Amino acid sequence: MNYTTIGKNEVKVDAKAKATGEARYVGDMYARGMLIGKVLRSPYAHAKILNIDTSKAERLSGVKAVLTYKDTPKVPFNFAAFPPSEAAILIEDQYIFSDKARFVGDPIAGVAAVDEETAQEALELIEVEYEPLPTILSAEEAFKNKELLIHEHDGPKEHIDGNICGKIPAVIGDMEEGFDEADYIFEGTYKTQKAFQASMEPCSAALAEPDINGRIKITTSTQMPHLVRKITARSLDMPIRDVQIVKPYVGGGFGSRLGLVNEPIAGLLAKKTGQPVRVTYDREESFYTESRHPATMTLKTGIKKDGTFTARYMKALVDTGAYVTHGPSLTAVLGGWFVGMYKSPNIQLDGYTVHTNTPPAGAFRGYGNPQVAFAVESQVDEIAEELGLDPIEIRLKNHPCEGETWLWSKMPIESCGLEECIEKATKRIGWEEKKNKEKKEEGTKRRGVGFGYMMHVSGAKPELHENSSAIIKVNEDGSVNLTYACSDIGTGSATALSQICAETLGVKFEDVVITQDADTDTAPFEIGSHASRQIYSGGYAVEQAAKDAKDGLLEMASKMMDCSPEELETGDGHVYLKEDPERSLSIEEVSFEAHFGEHGHQIMGIASTEPPGNPPVYAVQFTEVEVDVETGKVDVLDFVAAHDTGVAIHPPSVEGQIEGAIQQGMGYALTEDMQYSDDGHPMNANFSDYKVLTSVDMPDMDPIVVEAASETGAFGAKSVGESGLVATAPAIANAIYDAVGVRIKELPITPEKLLAAIKEKNNTEGEVAAATEQVASTEE
Amino acid sequence: MNYTTIGKNEVKVDAKAKATGEARYVGDMYARGMLIGKVLRSPYAHAKILNIDTSKAERLSGVKAVLTYKDTPKVPFNFAAFPPSEAAILIEDQYIFSDKARFVGDPIAGVAAVDEETAQEALELIEVEYEPLPTILSAEEAFKNKELLIHEHDGPKEHIDGNICGKIPAVIGDMEEGFDEADYIFEGTYKTQKAFQASMEPCSAALAEPDINGRIKITTSTQMPHLVRKITARSLDMPIRDVQIVKPYVGGGFGSRLGLVNEPIAGLLAKKTGQPVRVTYDREESFYTESRHPATMTLKTGIKKDGTFTARYMKALVDTGAYVTHGPSLTAVLGGWFVGMYKSPNIQLDGYTVHTNTPPAGAFRGYGNPQVAFAVESQVDEIAEELGLDPIEIRLKNHPCEGETWLWSKMPIESCGLEECIEKATKRIGWEEKKNKEKKEEGTKRRGVGFGYMMHVSGAKPELHENSSAIIKVNEDGSVNLTYACSDIGTGSATALSQICAETLGVKFEDVVITQDADTDTAPFEIGSHASRQIYSGGYAVEQAAKDAKDGLLEMASKMMDCSPEELETGDGHVYLKEDPERSLSIEEVSFEAHFGEHGHQIMGIASTEPPGNPPVYAVQFTEVEVDVETGKVDVLDFVAAHDTGVAIHPPSVEGQIEGAIQQGMGYALTEDMQYSDDGHPMNANFSDYKVLTSVDMPDMDPIVVEAASETGAFGAKSVGESGLVATAPAIANAIYDAVGVRIKELPITPEKLLAAIKEKNNTEGEVAAATEQVASTEE
Repeated sequence: MNYTTIGKNEVKVDAKAKATGEARYVGDMYARGMLIGKVLRSPYAHAKILNIDTSKAERLSGVKAVLTYKDTPKVPFNFAAFPPSEAAILIEDQYIFSDKARFVGDPIAGVAAVDEETAQEALELIEVEYEPLPTILSAEEAFKNKELLIHEHDGPKEHIDGNICGKIPAVIGDMEEGFDEADYIFEGTYKTQKAFQASMEPCSAALAEPDINGRIKITTSTQMPHLVRKITARSLDMPIRDVQIVKPYVGGGFGSRLGLVNEPIAGLLAKKTGQPVRVTYDREESFYTESRHPATMTLKTGIKKDGTFTARYMKALVDTGAYVTHGPSLTAVLGGWFVGMYKSPNIQLDGYTVHTNTPPAGAFRGYGNPQVAFAVESQVDEIAEELGLDPIEIRLKNHPCEGETWLWSKMPIESCGLEECIEKATKRIGWEEKKNKEKKEEGTKRRGVGFGYMMHVSGAKPELHENSSAIIKVNEDGSVNLTYACSDIGTGSATALSQICAETLGVKFEDVVITQDADTDTAPFEIGSHASRQIYSGGYAVEQAAKDAKDGLLEMASKMMDCSPEELETGDGHVYLKEDPERSLSIEEVSFEAHFGEHGHQIMGIASTEPPGNPPVYAVQFTEVEVDVETGKVDVLDFVAAHDTGVAIHPPSVEGQIEGAIQQGMGYALTEDMQYSDDGHPMNANFSDYKVLTSVDMPDMDPIVVEAASETGAFGAKSVGESGLVATAPAIANAIYDAVGVRIKELPITPEKLLAAIKEKNNTEGEVAAATEQVASTEE
Repeated sequence: MNYTTIGKNEVKVDAKAKATGEARYVGDMYARGMLIGKVLRSPYAHAKILNIDTSKAERLSGVKAVLTYKDTPKVPFNFAAFPPSEAAILIEDQYIFSDKARFVGDPIAGVAAVDEETAQEALELIEVEYEPLPTILSAEEAFKNKELLIHEHDGPKEHIDGNICGKIPAVIGDMEEGFDEADYIFEGTYKTQKAFQASMEPCSAALAEPDINGRIKITTSTQMPHLVRKITARSLDMPIRDVQIVKPYVGGGFGSRLGLVNEPIAGLLAKKTGQPVRVTYDREESFYTESRHPATMTLKTGIKKDGTFTARYMKALVDTGAYVTHGPSLTAVLGGWFVGMYKSPNIQLDGYTVHTNTPPAGAFRGYGNPQVAFAVESQVDEIAEELGLDPIEIRLKNHPCEGETWLWSKMPIESCGLEECIEKATKRIGWEEKKNKEKKEEGTKRRGVGFGYMMHVSGAKPELHENSSAIIKVNEDGSVNLTYACSDIGTGSATALSQICAETLGVKFEDVVITQDADTDTAPFEIGSHASRQIYSGGYAVEQAAKDAKDGLLEMASKMMDCSPEELETGDGHVYLKEDPERSLSIEEVSFEAHFGEHGHQIMGIASTEPPGNPPVYAVQFTEVEVDVETGKVDVLDFVAAHDTGVAIHPPSVEGQIEGAIQQGMGYALTEDMQYSDDGHPMNANFSDYKVLTSVDMPDMDPIVVEAASETGAFGAKSVGESGLVATAPAIANAIYDAVGVRIKELPITPEKLLAAIKEKNNTEGEVAAATEQVASTEE
């Protein structure tokens, strides 16, 4: 198609502001009379609070409020901001402050004071009498232990059992029958770790400003202004009407801002003091907010000789930490990824979500898919090797195809670019040359290639009810304001949505002004930036609103040009006669006449809607690694990611999303791991000890964008926000196996684990080469 | 009608914020890195600028920019923010800074510096070489003097002649014939002064914040965000797209914020420095901004014995000061009031607008009507007395009536409550008892009663194309956000529009949240707060948007209740079956289901439209005064104002508008007068010397609200914002005549003028009573 802006490398609407530092984040903001709020946190992983004495803190000059469980609205809520839905298992087990601490770092009290120093001093003056309780740190123990309960849950009975807060069964076909039909059965257990989103802007800051009418305006770094409004109101026991959420620039989200962070604490402190209060969590405190769920996945796969799956089973044990938050819902979605990835007549899932005395887990780019992809794609490679099947063929044989209904979402698969992805990626990485290369068993550096495949969604439908809205107004100069409660968390969605608006309406890209600061008072409802949904779902709403505005333009122009609206079309800032494009009016002329001519009116367009589908996206990611068998260190040399994203609205953003996600996925694969001492203290809640990969750690990266257009997305768009992370860890694990013949089934693949495994393999095989011998001796 | 909120005394939406000081005005605002802008003003009323040397000022530490005519975009503009229209005579004769000064106080240069002291010091370091020119201060001289030109106008030739910048003829019928048919002809000349709006918030403050994308956000105290966006963009030679206007609370307008004040200066300084700049005019500087046009009106009226007018003629000389601004348009509208006030088959107007070397005049509550009402209502009383006619009867005989087309607007007169107004007001003031009371010619205090009649508009149609817009969204809790670019300048319009929204939609008043800070990026187009148009025109748009949203609610509810939308109605937060009101759903339930049920969407309503009509309003205002014949001091003892406002949406605001306008009208009648020395320096540019009446000066006031419903306004509303000022001065002048038998034809009626007139009358009549003798002797 010959588009004006779709597919073009427009300068991102927020690029200059972010690059120059002009962009303001909540932590940069001040309000008149603003207080600083700080949070006292539990030093125990599990303890009853017998008493809190705040009197000394309250007497400190400059302290305006000290709040504890005694001051907390007695309304339970859940930090996860789901739209109400049957699929969202919303157990409410949180209070702003509670009389029980369930993890080291659990908020116990909040202080508002005139400055940070005073607030800090006040925290130190709060005297808390704790009764420490035994702790549960492992999911396995939590699953078994029915005596020591972290919660006495009120939740739905079918989900609650001891420390289990989510039981998610799923059955398709008859698994036993499926295994009976299998020629081979493979079984294995894979484990993934607790990982941290590590957005650039610490998670999180909220500035709450109460007003004399009883409303509270909270400026907060969030991925979902409207849903955060809803649960903030609940947490504060206020009507939704009285809460206004404003989202300024957001310094990265990755799921960490998918729900509440400290809006309720800031709000409560503001409500009690009657003054604005800003609460900013520092980097260490951010490690106490929601992270990625650790999962233990036991897979059992039945397969015929020809490579067809007959039965697929997963038991998943998902650790949601101290509070339910997303736990059961994530477990269900994690099951969905498993179910949807490969076809089989018989599939079964037993998912369990358990509590441990660790910080709560929540949403993180991929939302269960990275865990599942690591497990499944590791096992499929094992199967292929064991049966002597081509690892690409086995995937092509079993993946869901265009025209089918995808088992995950029960939505039509509108297009599938997987084969093109594979073709391009294998060519680029040199798969044919490298895959069967005989391994030199000499030297200390061994190279290998591997890949992973994945599917992902373009929205949350039908698990959650989609709902995006947009308001477009055409100004008297032909420029356009687009009001959309978009949380562009760095993905480029504000730019792409502006392109969709411009192209649909026929105006120039630079004539679209999108409102960056989504304000729930003026921006219409939107369920937020998650499920990779902004371009498909949000884009659909923007497209519909733009069509609505376009109808208004054509109608106005038809009066001016004395023809019917049907004879007209728009493009590049003009309305023209289809039959004679030379006969045209500028959109400025049309809009000016609408504003100031007879029957003065501004041409507007609105839409609030869910999109018709939820087309899945596909990706294959290939990598070449080099393993140092003396140190266990893995160097990722090359990374080729081929993604079927649908039509790329803003190609640089699409490539940027893929590259950034790979970087995050590599950390997940190799270095990132939130660790806790035996008594539940975080061991690495900082960026020195928690190793996030940076640009210098990056290999050559080659995002290949395959544009298998969706039928229903705006201009054929699907999604890309999360998919790059998903198949990164299995690609690396498979490449490591290719390099050194050992398979690590537990993320991250640290040098320690890899070295131990190499050693064990060599010992087992009794073939101790000189090089590894040397390694072993260094180890002692 | 049995309304839920219409006609109820709701707490004004801004009352608490304003009463507690929580409401922020532009002068209260700070932005990061904000500079203070100040303006150098001409000390000459008329001078060429030969050179400006800014080098010393620029070298001063802390000074970021010094701008003069050399830095000004070479785009002429007009401070008056009219929507483009044939009726708006938009001569563009202003630049941000010019090389000619045309009044004392004319901005010559602008400075932006790190603080106010530095900016002030920099102003003093600017060296300007002036060539002083002779000045013209009186309109009469300006009319005649074709040699000394204040402007070399580029404007339309039919309007420009020497210092005349507007020639406004109007002819209905044949005036000569009309005078031939008359039994009597009356002629007289009436003069009104230059008066100051004196809003509480000094006029004006603008905070301009440039961004890295080339846009400028200007937070400004304005009555018309969108039109100010338009001309600010023009003045800065920028696209409208790149200007964003945000209107916070406004501390009174009265017309003074009907167009540009200092937005261009703040914008230009911000653009040049790349930093936020706030320019705040102090009280003295506010006296250099637009005020009320002085007018000299010569009336000639032909009348039959029975009191019917046969011909009406006015020659008006209107002084617009140094720049055109509203001048010719105001003169045209002033003519309109004259034409519309009383019927006559033959009416003629010769209106002239002239320049003088005084600060420009602009819009001020009434917009020409107070001038005309003073002239006409004085003369009609003279006629009635001379012919022995009842002053009420002569008005009732000649006023335009319901069902007729009003000559002013050519719009239907939808309703007329004048007779009811007269009936109630005469009863309350005791007209019958007081009017024919024989005057005691003893003592020094003489009482008299008088009244004035007037008509006013409910909008600007068809002179200007009306255009108001509203966006309504219904939240998941059934509350409603109303986005409307409303400048509630203290009139209560935000409250009344919220009531219209609530009543139309069927929600509770407190569940409507109206956006106070109109932002042109998110709020749809609106031509602003003027022409008393907010409730009629703005209310119509809000009503239409609410109907649109209501349609969405009924449709959603009909699905839930399994019926047709036509069977349903809304009220008091519910949707119910008309036939069986017990069967109902709360609007919260309906909206919740819309948001989160199948086909998730937020119910919204939009409208952008002009209203069908422009129904005039009527008022009669009666007063009783006491004149001290020794001092000439006038005490207003009682003021009874009966206004046909249409249905009063928010009665306390309606009464408040009437009372406030009377207070302003009393100042106009008695004390307020902007005076200049012979060389054009203001003599009383402060509140010590320019006497604004305050609450302690007020008499008993009794607003009587007559609700002759309009056919087209929301719930029958018409208007009230300006009308209370209009007939105040003639009522007082007529009452003074009744008290002491002298007629002052020049406002304000100061003790000096009145005393001189009393003396002259006594001398002329040769009847020097003891009391007045004493007065005369005191005078010597």
